[in-house]
Amino acid sequence: MMKKVRLGIIGMGQQGGFYLGTLTGIQINPGKPIEKADLEQIEVTAVSDIDPAKREKIKSLLPNIHVYDNYIDMLDSGNVDAIVTTVSHYLHSEMGIEALKRNIHVLLEKPAGVYTKQVQELIDVAKGKPELTFAVFFNQRMNPLYRKLKEIIDNGEIGEIRRTNWIITTWYRPQAYYDMSAWRATWEGEGGGVLVNQAPHQIDLMQWLCGMPKKVYAKCQYGYQRDIAVEDDVTALFDYGNGATGVLVTCTHDIVGSDRLEILGDKGKIVVNNSRTVTITRLKKSESEINAQITDLTEVYKLMRGSSNIQNELIDVETIEFDNVWGQQHIDILKNFAANILDKTPLVAPGSDGIRGVRLANAIHLSSWLNKEIDIDFDENFFYEKLQEKIREEKNEQII
Amino acid sequence: MMKKVRLGIIGMGQQGGFYLGTLTGIQINPGKPIEKADLEQIEVTAVSDIDPAKREKIKSLLPNIHVYDNYIDMLDSGNVDAIVTTVSHYLHSEMGIEALKRNIHVLLEKPAGVYTKQVQELIDVAKGKPELTFAVFFNQRMNPLYRKLKEIIDNGEIGEIRRTNWIITTWYRPQAYYDMSAWRATWEGEGGGVLVNQAPHQIDLMQWLCGMPKKVYAKCQYGYQRDIAVEDDVTALFDYGNGATGVLVTCTHDIVGSDRLEILGDKGKIVVNNSRTVTITRLKKSESEINAQITDLTEVYKLMRGSSNIQNELIDVETIEFDNVWGQQHIDILKNFAANILDKTPLVAPGSDGIRGVRLANAIHLSSWLNKEIDIDFDENFFYEKLQEKIREEKNEQII
Repeated sequence: MMKKVRLGIIGMGQQGGFYLGTLTGIQINPGKPIEKADLEQIEVTAVSDIDPAKREKIKSLLPNIHVYDNYIDMLDSGNVDAIVTTVSHYLHSEMGIEALKRNIHVLLEKPAGVYTKQVQELIDVAKGKPELTFAVFFNQRMNPLYRKLKEIIDNGEIGEIRRTNWIITTWYRPQAYYDMSAWRATWEGEGGGVLVNQAPHQIDLMQWLCGMPKKVYAKCQYGYQRDIAVEDDVTALFDYGNGATGVLVTCTHDIVGSDRLEILGDKGKIVVNNSRTVTITRLKKSESEINAQITDLTEVYKLMRGSSNIQNELIDVETIEFDNVWGQQHIDILKNFAANILDKTPLVAPGSDGIRGVRLANAIHLSSWLNKEIDIDFDENFFYEKLQEKIREEKNEQII
Repeated sequence: MMKKVRLGIIGMGQQGGFYLGTLTGIQINPGKPIEKADLEQIEVTAVSDIDPAKREKIKSLLPNIHVYDNYIDMLDSGNVDAIVTTVSHYLHSEMGIEALKRNIHVLLEKPAGVYTKQVQELIDVAKGKPELTFAVFFNQRMNPLYRKLKEIIDNGEIGEIRRTNWIITTWYRPQAYYDMSAWRATWEGEGGGVLVNQAPHQIDLMQWLCGMPKKVYAKCQYGYQRDIAVEDDVTALFDYGNGATGVLVTCTHDIVGSDRLEILGDKGKIVVNNSRTVTITRLKKSESEINAQITDLTEVYKLMRGSSNIQNELIDVETIEFDNVWGQQHIDILKNFAANILDKTPLVAPGSDGIRGVRLANAIHLSSWLNKEIDIDFDENFFYEKLQEKIREEKNEQII
């Protein structure tokens, strides 16, 4: 068994450069200074990029790393045991498939793909290769805050979920960001806006923590506050099929930025502010039991005025502050990926999970296009056709 | 000109008893001890109630007040200049019409009615009697907190509105509350649940502060956590027609209770927590202007990491704490009503405003029944027919 995973990074853009820097200590892109992580299970042995200037820079800074202009050559070289993709969302699935076919482990940048049809193909290939590791870079699943929430919910501490509600508008992106590259915020280049590029973390966390909704209604605003073809503002309403509902609000034009997550269960409530402060309210009995026990009308009035002892006697409130751990989460995902390859440590973000966030994002788009509620098991070929329509419309507009 | 308004109260239930107590200092119903308000512009001269026991109690406690078993007799008696209705929501409009026809001023308890068709009739009668005062008991419009928000928004301090978002689940009502009276939480008795009984204040405040949406999509859960026919849980999505969107979430089964209002404008944001703490963020330039000025990619990255000076230099944050003023608001509405009658002081909650909240609540119901987005100018006869269907279904279920 290998002792170190020989990793190839596909794409040397902002994210690929960050992973390379974290693993080698060598900074190749401008931005926040990079520190080498303590991650001896992984050695970067190769990178690929289509940009000659990037390749030359890496060759001069990291002469021991193999550099390719084509990721297929890298996969075929025998120099890598595993790859991580940091490329256009559309390419994630096909690169994953090509790697798995060559018995190379795969860590896909989020989202796992743009449309479920594509991601399903990848998952089917992965099923035929159970000995290989296939994971998605859902780094927020390594955030101790969300791991704590997952534990609380899975333990049944807040009971059965009745409501989810996340307003996450801290994804501020000025027009200059969109103008950085022609592929940004286009149907052809990215397949969507905030849903595909910024909010996949929250979309994944919502389904990881609270499960998949059964139905989705959504309103997306396309090019609302930015000169882009795709959505910069989303309000989605979830129906979990058992009476529970949810709301997700996100956008890229709120310079102030809100981030408040609420999860209501029949035994308590979790409120998270700014992805830092968690307030957990636990009921000593389920709300249904408390409700059944209130028979005295005086008690009803006291409850209505907030002066009942029931509230004080049956409710415990705990507040936990978490640090901001951006950066460390990425290292932890890489560690978990390597540990699964080396000794079968369970994956925190298995590749098969990747399709759920894509399905949810697709359902949000589809609902907004058709202006009606969409079953989460929508026809994936229909979605694919609709997406192609958007791409064609976008091209026609560019010609005009 | 009269110096005091001679007021008749229709209905001696919880709310009618509270107004009588506030105006006379005499408590007739159990509950929180009542204090007499300093409200010399109004004198209660008559009450009416269908319950003989209530009437006897008032006769013995307040021998100078005329007591009627029938509100029409009270209107015809010549003993009242004005009335306030604290009866079944369905009766508000017709009682208002009967009073106005007799040249008696009207203060309607909220909501102004159950369906817009009914409220429009009342408004039409009121239009023909411009010399009479016609107001709705939207006491929250007297809350200094919401008056401050109204001022900030009307002054343009946060610019054009882009998003509204209110999660207001502090309306906890146990089953015992619904079981208090057979009319509660029925289509026939109330015409709805949390939308008609608890949340009309927030529905009115949202439209008062931010305007009426053009379209509404909503999901209501009927009898979700309570054994009732009507909705105990609502999630509504508003489309203001100009790209701006909104969300209203409310329910009666959350014993913990959330109350968070956010209003995002292109020049700032207001966040209100627990109807007490207001955080106002003001931008020195509009977000559109700031966006246009960011051209440097380094600045883009700094913004993305939250380390840009733009955030600090262009953003001011003010926090204001308000006291809980429940009770005083009701007195202030009564004072404003009397002042309009006596010297034409402008009304804070004119009767003609009452139809907006009813229209919004009706649109939410209708959207949920049809599971599609509803134009705010929906056909009011169609809504009326649908409501009658609900009443018939409810009766059939009772028979079975």
